This record gives sequence, C-alpha cells and structure tokens, in this order.
Amino acid sequence: MAQRRKIINDPVYGFITIDHPLLFEVIGHPYYQRLRRIQQMAFAHLVYPGAVHSRLHHSLGAYHLMCIALRELQNKGVAISAEEELAAKIAILLHDIGHGPFSHALEHTLIEGVHHESISLQIMEVLNRQNNGALDMAIRIFNNTYHLPFLHQLVSGQLDVDRMDYLTRDSFFTGVSEGVIGYDRIIKMLAVHDGQLVVEEKGIFSIEKFLVARRLMYWQVYLHKTVLGAEKLLVNIIRRAKDLIQAGNRLPVPSPVLELFLQQQKVRDLHNQLDAFCQLDDYDLMAAVKCWANQPDRVLSALCRMLLNRKLLKVKLQADPLDPAIVEATRTSLIKETGLTEEELDYFVFSGETSNTTYDPAEERIQVLFKDGSIKDISQVDNALIQHNLSRPLKKYYFCFPDPVSAIKELQGRTK
Amino acid sequence: MAQRRKIINDPVYGFITIDHPLLFEVIGHPYYQRLRRIQQMAFAHLVYPGAVHSRLHHSLGAYHLMCIALRELQNKGVAISAEEELAAKIAILLHDIGHGPFSHALEHTLIEGVHHESISLQIMEVLNRQNNGALDMAIRIFNNTYHLPFLHQLVSGQLDVDRMDYLTRDSFFTGVSEGVIGYDRIIKMLAVHDGQLVVEEKGIFSIEKFLVARRLMYWQVYLHKTVLGAEKLLVNIIRRAKDLIQAGNRLPVPSPVLELFLQQQKVRDLHNQLDAFCQLDDYDLMAAVKCWANQPDRVLSALCRMLLNRKLLKVKLQADPLDPAIVEATRTSLIKETGLTEEELDYFVFSGETSNTTYDPAEERIQVLFKDGSIKDISQVDNALIQHNLSRPLKKYYFCFPDPVSAIKELQGRTK
Amino acid sequence: MAQRRKIINDPVYGFITIDHPLLFEVIGHPYYQRLRRIQQMAFAHLVYPGAVHSRLHHSLGAYHLMCIALRELQNKGVAISAEEELAAKIAILLHDIGHGPFSHALEHTLIEGVHHESISLQIMEVLNRQNNGALDMAIRIFNNTYHLPFLHQLVSGQLDVDRMDYLTRDSFFTGVSEGVIGYDRIIKMLAVHDGQLVVEEKGIFSIEKFLVARRLMYWQVYLHKTVLGAEKLLVNIIRRAKDLIQAGNRLPVPSPVLELFLQQQKVRDLHNQLDAFCQLDDYDLMAAVKCWANQPDRVLSALCRMLLNRKLLKVKLQADPLDPAIVEATRTSLIKETGLTEEELDYFVFSGETSNTTYDPAEERIQVLFKDGSIKDISQVDNALIQHNLSRPLKKYYFCFPDPVSAIKELQGRTK
Amino acid sequence: MAQRRKIINDPVYGFITIDHPLLFEVIGHPYYQRLRRIQQMAFAHLVYPGAVHSRLHHSLGAYHLMCIALRELQNKGVAISAEEELAAKIAILLHDIGHGPFSHALEHTLIEGVHHESISLQIMEVLNRQNNGALDMAIRIFNNTYHLPFLHQLVSGQLDVDRMDYLTRDSFFTGVSEGVIGYDRIIKMLAVHDGQLVVEEKGIFSIEKFLVARRLMYWQVYLHKTVLGAEKLLVNIIRRAKDLIQAGNRLPVPSPVLELFLQQQKVRDLHNQLDAFCQLDDYDLMAAVKCWANQPDRVLSALCRMLLNRKLLKVKLQADPLDPAIVEATRTSLIKETGLTEEELDYFVFSGETSNTTYDPAEERIQVLFKDGSIKDISQVDNALIQHNLSRPLKKYYFCFPDPVSAIKELQGRTK
Repeated sequence: MAQRRKIINDPVYGFITIDHPLLFEVIGHPYYQRLRRIQQMAFAHLVYPGAVHSRLHHSLGAYHLMCIALRELQNKGVAISAEEELAAKIAILLHDIGHGPFSHALEHTLIEGVHHESISLQIMEVLNRQNNGALDMAIRIFNNTYHLPFLHQLVSGQLDVDRMDYLTRDSFFTGVSEGVIGYDRIIKMLAVHDGQLVVEEKGIFSIEKFLVARRLMYWQVYLHKTVLGAEKLLVNIIRRAKDLIQAGNRLPVPSPVLELFLQQQKVRDLHNQLDAFCQLDDYDLMAAVKCWANQPDRVLSALCRMLLNRKLLKVKLQADPLDPAIVEATRTSLIKETGLTEEELDYFVFSGETSNTTYDPAEERIQVLFKDGSIKDISQVDNALIQHNLSRPLKKYYFCFPDPVSAIKELQGRTK
Repeated sequence: MAQRRKIINDPVYGFITIDHPLLFEVIGHPYYQRLRRIQQMAFAHLVYPGAVHSRLHHSLGAYHLMCIALRELQNKGVAISAEEELAAKIAILLHDIGHGPFSHALEHTLIEGVHHESISLQIMEVLNRQNNGALDMAIRIFNNTYHLPFLHQLVSGQLDVDRMDYLTRDSFFTGVSEGVIGYDRIIKMLAVHDGQLVVEEKGIFSIEKFLVARRLMYWQVYLHKTVLGAEKLLVNIIRRAKDLIQAGNRLPVPSPVLELFLQQQKVRDLHNQLDAFCQLDDYDLMAAVKCWANQPDRVLSALCRMLLNRKLLKVKLQADPLDPAIVEATRTSLIKETGLTEEELDYFVFSGETSNTTYDPAEERIQVLFKDGSIKDISQVDNALIQHNLSRPLKKYYFCFPDPVSAIKELQGRTK
Repeated sequence: MAQRRKIINDPVYGFITIDHPLLFEVIGHPYYQRLRRIQQMAFAHLVYPGAVHSRLHHSLGAYHLMCIALRELQNKGVAISAEEELAAKIAILLHDIGHGPFSHALEHTLIEGVHHESISLQIMEVLNRQNNGALDMAIRIFNNTYHLPFLHQLVSGQLDVDRMDYLTRDSFFTGVSEGVIGYDRIIKMLAVHDGQLVVEEKGIFSIEKFLVARRLMYWQVYLHKTVLGAEKLLVNIIRRAKDLIQAGNRLPVPSPVLELFLQQQKVRDLHNQLDAFCQLDDYDLMAAVKCWANQPDRVLSALCRMLLNRKLLKVKLQADPLDPAIVEATRTSLIKETGLTEEELDYFVFSGETSNTTYDPAEERIQVLFKDGSIKDISQVDNALIQHNLSRPLKKYYFCFPDPVSAIKELQGRTK
Repeated sequence: MAQRRKIINDPVYGFITIDHPLLFEVIGHPYYQRLRRIQQMAFAHLVYPGAVHSRLHHSLGAYHLMCIALRELQNKGVAISAEEELAAKIAILLHDIGHGPFSHALEHTLIEGVHHESISLQIMEVLNRQNNGALDMAIRIFNNTYHLPFLHQLVSGQLDVDRMDYLTRDSFFTGVSEGVIGYDRIIKMLAVHDGQLVVEEKGIFSIEKFLVARRLMYWQVYLHKTVLGAEKLLVNIIRRAKDLIQAGNRLPVPSPVLELFLQQQKVRDLHNQLDAFCQLDDYDLMAAVKCWANQPDRVLSALCRMLLNRKLLKVKLQADPLDPAIVEATRTSLIKETGLTEEELDYFVFSGETSNTTYDPAEERIQVLFKDGSIKDISQVDNALIQHNLSRPLKKYYFCFPDPVSAIKELQGRTK
C-alpha cells in the first residue's frame, strides 16, 4: 500500500505534499537545505519585518503550484506522463538552487557575470550524476530542450509557477495585501495549445490583475527605496572588503568559503568552486558584516554598522534624472563635514537607475486562447489595460547619501 | 462613565463599534433594519454562492471605514469636530437607505427615473423630523452643501468608503480574491488639501490597484453574463406582471405594498408612498415570483420558474455589436419551436449594451498630493497605467435567449 | 477529451469542482436549488450580520470536503471505487435536502415529530426514481446500510464532513475566528480501520481543538441568547397563526404551500405532501411574517413586527434554573402594563432549557489509531482534555420576556 | 501639527503605528535592532518552514496589541494617563530584549541560571540611563513595582499581550490554523477591577479557546519532537565546544563575542558583559556551526553537519517513562556500529522529560468579572472545561538517538 508520504504546513497554501523518493532525495540534499539559510527577499525585512521567509520555502511553494497546475492540465485532457510530472516537479524545486547569499542583492557582486540560473543548471547536473541520471528529463525541461515547451514555461515564463508563488508568498509575508493575485484562478485557466502554455479567454482579467500586482510589488516592495539603499550598502561592503584585500590589507573573514570568493577579483567560472559556492549562505555574509563592524578601516566598519543597526543611507527615487548640481553640492558638503576623501565618499554617495517593465510582448508572451480556438497575445486583445504603454519599461533614478550627523557618528564608531 | 457601547462581529474587519445614542437610534429604526432583507449583490449568488450578504452589512462596513478614515485624518491634524464626525457617520450609515428590492437590479423598474440616492435623501429627511433635526448636518454632508467638501467625498466620491467597502466585502463574500484592495493602506494615504480629499503620492500604486480591482469586479462579477441574465429575467417578470395588470388581468400579488407599486404604470414621485416603499424588500419580490410560478399566464410562470429553478437564459457578452442576422435567426427558430408569439418572445429574447469606465477624470477625480505640496489628477501623473485609455468606457453587447429544450419544458410547467 | 467540468468560487475553500453528469443533475434539480432560499443559520444574522449563507452553500462545501477526504483515503491505500466515490458525494450533497424553512429553528414546528434526516431520505428516494436508480448506493451510504461504514461516517458521524464544513463556514461568515478548526489537518489524519473511520494518533490535538471549537460555537453563536430569542419568536408566530386558523379566524397566508401546512394541526406523514414541502422556503415564511405584521390580531401582529424590526424579546440565559418568583413577578407586572391576557402573554413570556454535550462517547465515538495498530476511544486516551467532564451535557436555562415599553409600542402597532 | 508618525506593514494585524519620539528612540537602538537577527521560534522552521519570523517582529506585534488594549480600557472608563500609556508601550517593546541567540533554545546554556527577563531588566536600565530616566515608569511596570498592577499584567500575566501575540503570530507563520485565538475579542473583554486585569464573563469561551490553543501549540509546535531534537542538538554543540575549549583544544570561533562566552565555563553575572551579550545573535551561532562542521573533532563536526543538513536525531516522545532496557540496547548497538566512546555517545543519545500546564491557578490567575460585579477564578466557574485536570502539568518523556547509517556517514564527514 501507500508509499512514504509527507505533508508540510505552509501558511500560504495549507499543506504541501511530498510523495516520491526522488523528491525526498532532492529536498534532503545539503545543497537544497542550504536554501533555508538564504532569505528570499534579502533586506526587504528592514521595511517589511515579516519578509524573512527563505528561498527553500519559496521553492516548496512553487513546487506545490506545479503539482496543482499539472493536475489541472491533466484534468483538461493534456497528456502528461508520470515521468514528465516528476521531472517538472524536480525542475521547479531546483529552479533557484543556484542563488547565492541574499538572493538578487549580491548577484553579480560575489560572482560576476554569471546568472543564478546558469549556476542552478550546473548544480542540477551534479545532483544528476549523484543520482545516476534520474534528473535527465528535469534538466531538459529546465533548459528548454524537452519537446513539450509548456513544461518549461510552467517553470520559467510569463505565467510560470515561480512568479505565481513569489508574488503570492511575498505579499503574504510582507502584508502588502495589494500584491495578492488569483493564483488558483489563473491555474484553472491554463491550457495547452500546440505544446505551448496558453490562458483561456475568461482568465484575461485575472492576468491583468496579476501583471498590475507584479508592477505594484516591484515599486512598492522590491524596489522600495529603503530596501534598494540597504542592498547597495551590502554591495559596497563587499566591494570595500575586496578592495582592501586586493590592496594587501589583512582583513579577517570569519568564513573560509566567503574568503575564497573575496580573494578573487573576478569569479567567472564556478566549475572548480561549485561545492564551495554551495556552502555559502546569508550567515557567512552577516557574520562577516558583524566582524567587520569593529575593524580599523573606517569606511568598512561604518558601512557595516549602518547596515547592522539600520542607520541606512537616505535614498531619493524619482522619475527624472538627478540634477548634477545637487549631487555635487551634497558631495562637497559631506566631504567637509565627514572628512572622508573623494574616493572613500564613493561608498556612501552614489546614484544609478532602476527599471521595470510591466509587460514586454517582445521578450515573453502571454497567449490567450479564445473559445473559437484562435490565439492572440494579451497585448493584442481588444482590451484597454495591457497595451503598449505597459510594455515600455518604467525607469526611475536613485540617489543615495548619508545623513551627515548619523554618518559622522558611525564613522567615529559610536553606537550611541 | 462608559456610555453604552456595542461591538458587532464582522468577518471582513473583525469588530465594528457603535458608541453613540443617535447611531443606535438610526440602526434600530425599522427603515434601517429593512436593509437586512435586501441582498447587496442581488442575483450574483447564482454564480458566486457566497454572495448573499445584505445591504445592512455593507452599510455597517462603510460606517466602520468612515470611523477609521476620520481618525486617520484627525491624527494628521485635520480639524474635524465631534459633531462633524457623528454627522459623517450617520451620512454613510444611511447612504444606501433608499435602495429598493434587489438593489441595482430593479432600480428604474419598480420606481422609474428616481435614483436611489434621491430616495435616500427623502428618507433621511423623514428620520431627521422624527429626531428633531439631529440629522441636519448629516444631510448637508450627504447632499454636499456642507462647507467641508472632503466629508461629502468620503461618503461619495472616487475614493469614498462606500466603494472601498463594497469592493472589499464583495470580493470577500464571492471569494474573488483578485478584487481585494488595500483599503487600510488607501485610508492611511488620504489627506485633506484646501478642504478636498486627496491622496498622498506614495499611495499611487494602491490607487492603481484599486481601480484595476474595480474594473475586474465589474467584468468578472457585477456584469458576469449569468448574473446579468438573471437580473434581466427579474426585470421582465416585473414588466410582464405590470403589463398583465394594466391589461386588466387578475393577478394575485402576495404583498400589498408590492401590489401598490405594480398597479401604477409609472411611479415618479415617491412623496406620498415613501412609507410603503420602506416596507418593500427582497421577500416581497421573491414571494411574488414564487406565487406567479404557478399562474396561468405561460410567459409569466415560465419566467418565474426559470429564475427560481436556475434554468436561466443563455447570455452572449461580446465586444462587438450583435449580428442582426443571428438575432433574427434565433428568434425565428424559437418561435417555431416554442409556439410563442413575437410579443411574448420579447420577454425571453433581447439584447442591449452595458459599459463601465475604469477612470473618468471628467466626472470624478482623484487628486494626488505631492511632497512639495503640489496637486495633480492621477491621470496626469507621470505613470503608465491610469491614462487616457482607461478613461474611455469599455462597452460590451449582450444577447439573451433561452435554450429551446429547457424553455419548452418551463413553458409547459414541468419542473422535471 | 475532458468531460464537462465546472468550478464554483467559494470564499472558504477557493474553488469547488463539479465534474460528473449525475452531480450536475442533482445540483440542477429544483429541490436542490430550493436550498439557496434557506439560510443555514436562520436568525443568527440578527447578531452576526454576515451569517446569511445558504444551506446550498453549506452542502456544496461539505461536498468539497468529501472530495478531499476520499482522495486522501485513496492516497493512503483505502480501496474506494469510482462508483462509491460518486455515491458518497451524492449522499453528502443531499444530506440536508430535507431541511425546511429556517433550518433548525422551525424543525418540529411546521412538521411535527419528523426529523429532517428522514425527510432527506424520502426526497432522495424521489430523485432516485426520477434518475432510474442512479442514487441507490448513495441512499445506502446515507442510511448506513452500505457495507463500508466509513462512507456513512464521512456523511454523518463525529468527524463527518458535514460538521467540518458547518463549523468552518459558520465561523467564517460570522467572523467568530475562534470557531476555526483545522479541517484540512483533520482530513489528512483520517484513516480506515476495519471499515471504520478512525483518526491517526498525531491528530489528537486537532480533534480536541475541533471539539472545543464546536462547544464554543454552540454557546457563543448557535445558542446565543438573542438568536435563541428570535427563533422562539418565529416559533410562536407560527403557533399563533395555527391557533388562529384552528379557531376559525380568517388569516391571509401569502403562500399556498405554507397555508397547506398551517391548516393541519399536526403533520406527521409527509408522503402525500412531499412536493409541497419541497416548495417551502424562508421566503414563504418571511412573506407571511411581513403580511401578518399588519393583521388585526394584536398578538400576532406584535410578534411579527418585533421580529421584522429587531425589537426582540429580552433573554436571560443562566446555569441555574429560574426562580419561579421572578418569572411570576415579571408576568404580573407585564399583564398590568400591557393589558394582555394570561393566555396571550404566553406568546411573549416563556422559559425553557437548552443543552449541549461537547463529547458523548456513548452515542458517537472518535476512535484513535495508534502507530502500533491499536485503537482507543479519544475519551480513553491518556490525555487531560477530552474526558468525563466534557461528556456531560452542559445545560442552560433561558427566560424570555419583552421590554414593557417596547412591547406596548408594538402592541399598539407604532413603528416609531 | 502632526508629529512624526510611521506605519509598519504587518501581515498579521495590517498596520502598526509608531508615533512618539521615545518609541522611535527605543526601536532605533542597536540593542533593539539586534532582535531582527534572533528567530522567534529557533528551529521550528525545520518542521514548519514559514516559522522564521524574528523576535523584533513579535515585540512590535505585542506592542500593537498593547496599543489596542490600552485604548479599549480607556474607552471603558479606566483612567490611564498619557505617561502610563507610553510607559506600558515601552515595557512591552522591551520585554524580550534580554533574549539571546535562538531564544529559548539556548537559554541556560550560554548564560547559566539567568532568566531572559532579568537580562531584559538590566538592558532596560542601560537604556534608561542613556535616556536620562525616561524609562523609569516603564521599568516599574515591567518589574511590577508600579502601583497599577494591571499594567504589569498586560505585559506579563496569564492574559498578557505577549502571549496573545506569540500564539497569533506563531500560528500565522507556521500555518497551524488551530493555534488561532480570538485576540481581538479577548482584548474587547478585558476590564480592570481593583487595579487588577480581569476578563468579562462573556469572554469565558474565548479564554477557554485561548488556553486550548496554547496547549495545542505547545505539543504540536513548540515541543514537536523534531524541533525538540534540533534544539538539543544545538545545546550539545555548544556543550561540546565548551568542553573542547575547557580541555585546552584550539577551536576557531568566528565571532569574538561568542568566544568570550564559550571560554567561561559558567556565566552567572552579566553586568560586565552586557554590551558583549547585546552583540550576540543567531548569526554568531550559525556561523560557528558552519565553521565547526569542518573541524577535526568528529563529534563536534558530525553534530554541526547534522544540524546544517537537517540530518537530525530520531526522537521518541511518549507519555510513559522510557524503558531503560531499550535505551541501553540502543546505546550498545550504536557504540558497536559507530565506534564512538560512551562519553562521545552522550552527545548523540540522551533522554529527558518535558512538560506543560494548560492552566495553573496557583501560579497565574485568570479572574472573571461577572455582571453582578463579583469575581471568580476561571477554574472555579461553573463550567466543564478549565478545571482541575487541566491544571495538572502534562508531562512527556523524550529519547533522542541517531539513525546509525546516517550517523556513520556524518561521522565520516561525507555529505553525500
């Protein structure tokens, strides 16, 4: 009778069921358990204190939605074999396995120019070897070489279960009720047409709602100016540490694997360091930040204390490019007040731009299936909301700088 | 001390507090208690079985949001006296008191050309006389003659607590999670500028989300084709009953007050019949429908049985006008199959159009208050979503007609 | 491919799926649709305004939990055939089909001595004949003559999906969050042992919580003194109407089917009147109450106005029997103040007792399955909570009487 | 006007408002910000992946409930001055400031014999000095020397806002819906009688529900056998590390403040080390665990890998004491299979007992206020649930031991 079966409580969906030995194998692997120690939303908790859920929790959630989606499609008559089902579940469980500490915040800082999805693929290949090829099909689904594209699209596409879970989960944990999407209704509206994932006509309003919720979550949460500022602070901490090491300074690093990555100016090829990478998590980074908060380099220690004690940079986020005169005036005044050099100041005062596109029909498409069997891209549907104006990226300019009083205090190492 | 105070459980907000004698007086009045017997969403429950909440529940909910909104504004330094506070609460409690049976479904059918808000006003005046003028200020707020326009705007405007409650409540009871709005966040973002209700800049995304949620609720719920079809069925039942009575047929009407209104071809002035109107509710209508389901007139009885037994009309709802050839073909075929006359058929086969505007800056405005103190209409904000394309009404064409097999069965009075 | 399939939005569970022609047949039947017009909680909405959900909604909810429970048991290796699955679903859909207007409030008043479950059975037999025996197995499951008792126990037993749904749904719609039970966890813990429904050991705390939640819902909601008083008011309205008719008075009854039942002093056998019964619903009753509110009999009209306008009786609910001296004093004083006769006063002043047992191991049992395969009744488990003291009925005494001032006003027919 | 005011999104309550300079001062203090880095539920996330919320989040939540409770009491006429209000809010914000890493899991391991509440008091005194005595009254409320005991009881007592928040929050984040309590209803039922916090009679069922929910959370979550086992693992890791250091072994400790506490065999007086203590958090501990996972001591490294990779000990939790023969047999067999010494084995195989009392009327009391003004302890109320059997502690015995196969693998340092 009944093989081994486990249910996991999830505040978002109720219960998540695990019921296949290969799923237990993957979830029980140290590389997967590492995801417990990586926060899904990095420093968003500095603004939304509930946003401390882990990347493991997100990937279990996405797995759960995959289970529901596959069953719905099967109920609609889409042929999906038991092997394909399992492979799609493995693919989504592992889709984020390549994330490093603090998720997106440090991507391209510790490891340059390597996208987390390519690292995920490398790790999946390691697991595949350890399991004698049992992940072959999952890998093909993941890298979109399997002959049924809709399985890949469920893992990664405009309507994938990854996005559905992170929007649902992130709005749940932040308490931003406006990010709520009708994931269950969207899943009920999914269908397959010529091997492609499409959405039934009557799901259009849910899709609109989904795109608008995503847009809102970007600007209100993911790119919240305080969160943005904190992430940049961490990036600068790593930059400063690397620079100090590069310049021959002795800097204690409490984690040997972190040290390994800090010592290399550019990490481009992970092949020889994949196992080391799979030991890195948020704890290595924060332990370093805590350690460096008491180091003699005044720039590094001030940056670390600012992050630890939530004495963050001020951030301006605006639609128009910054006035260079204002930037210059701020710098001049800060140099006078803090005594920092121009080069040191760069760690505290900087600007940049950030953008987000609500719907880009060029890159990723949502195909709508009409009752008469025809297919249209959602941006072509006779419908006012999702049209060209949402397909342009919305760009914003940020400018970060410290409050002089607080900066001086931190530079002098006084916590009170 | 502690004056009389009552808390009411509300599944949507937790607890609603009533704490002033005049509030108890208004809520305890038979005219107000009548709202218990009027469903907020008429026949929406035929599609969304949970949508059976009453208009009384909605108006208590809107009252609750008014309490929160007033407190928030006071916390921001807006001067609102205790008397104004009470008056605004009374105004929102009574804003829907003029609704007749089945809310919007029968508006303009039983009482022609009289908007429910004008009836609300007449009823408020009756209550005011009974309470020796205690509702004077509430009436001025309601009809926007009070010198602080923001109080009226909280009762009736683009961002009034009426809309916030009905969207929140209707999405709660239907289970359409996509209609969820961030009412609490929107209320936190309200402010008053030159006596007008405005919303702070950082509330823009919440407002966008609110407008999109409303748009979705309109098309997915309020104008759902099955709901639309059921409401038109009730309208035709009343039309047929009036026509039969007008033509001198003897038709039993189980409710004397309903009979009063059916006997008059057009009711335009309610002044002499206000008390009768205030005795009408959903029960009078449904008791009549139940009674008429067994009357000899085959049109009337078939319509009533269709509504009671949920053997509803088929409804096509589409973006393009109907092809007259299809309408004609349907009619011809049905006349042949059912034996109905052309005139009788009109009760079963009909078409029309319905529309909804997501945001109309001409009629109603949402003013955004920027940090620098400036004000802009939300449609003018540098922001891709709420722009001219959402300000055009989205129009749809409907076409209702019976399934021939089922229609013949109902015309023959067989329930099985 | 894919047969006809329909999903229904439910605010409590998300979506309910209907996917078999016989299910559509049953749900589409006028006898089933009638349940839309019977409120699940009768007059509980006078205290909890959200509690207006229908018996149809509850039975759809119980059906949904049945679907989940059957799938869980199958996943655990319990053999349940497709036919048994369908039959169990039909049985739960129809378990409450025999309820009359206002559910429990009028049970034994309109139809004396006939339990609603026995009426359900008669109606199921009618549907079975209309469907050529397709409901045979459902009926055997319902009346516990099928050879697998656990299927009956899922429909009706200590841990049936009926209770799980009504507790969950009633706490949802009333907003009494304390009634929330872990229905999903309880279902995950169900198992079958020797054909009997049992619960796994690790579900004990959830069961305790379930029993305590039920206890709380009884005293805080179902037997809330105001709700109790309102239900007794309706019982007395029917009693008065019957007495008046019996005494030869002419009393208009707006509903012919209601009239049929009022004219018989005792209805004991429904066989010839089953179709009439299946046309009765809340609307017949409330239309009568509205009509009688203006009848000359001062007792009947006062009772009706009290119910309509929520000018309810005062209710004392206490652990000790009432002091007869207080009852007598109240009566004497009311006779003087209102001018009612002794016999008339009985409709307004009365007392009685009500009771509820949290767990009665004699009547109904919850069997716990331990890891070692042994079985114990939950009251025998080494566990402090569910023991003998919870198995005694908790009895309370109520005493209803009118507020003299308000009673006089209603007896004089003044609404204001 | 409008002083500085900040709202914080909370998924549990919606919004939390901070509106006084002293509140900003306390929350902004590095000692308070440290609570971000201490998980409220330690290792519960190994079973309930959502349970990763921080102690900072809990204390903000308890603060929010304090705000509501104080307003409710004021509305009922209890005199509470603005100064007392602020002091009670400060007291609850800081009630857990003395918690060390992993909250209760490591209490009495790093710092022996010092309860976290006594550390909280010492830290409050430091903050008081830094703020020139502004926390005087808060401290008196916290240590119950203020003349209004109900303020202390709101901070710490049977019905304090601490418990209400942690039950509500922990059940929210774990997804154990059965732990939900009616915190809002309980707060509405609070009153003050002779300076003591009491609960109104009609709140009895909510209180019962609260006690039963707490009981369930203890056994199902806090003392879940897997969670218990993981916490004991961490305790043994610390024990082993201390023992190694004590024995003169060189053990790298990545955190200087953690090293400080590990080097002392017993820490009893924190006075000189309070600032060091306030720098300790979960990150120091986990960084050490990660570091030690690769140390030569096979016991320490195996324990660390087991915790990191979730290869936990097996745990038996039972009502009866363990059979010593089974314990002995397990030990003998493990020594043979793993080659560990008796003394080394003690870190992997151990037993103990744990207990929880649902309601102990001797220690802490819930006083019920009846309508006639009388007071009774809830255990004396004529009411079957909360009686003597719930006042006895429920004791369970646990036995932890490794799976031999997995243990050998970890002792050999193979992760795969």
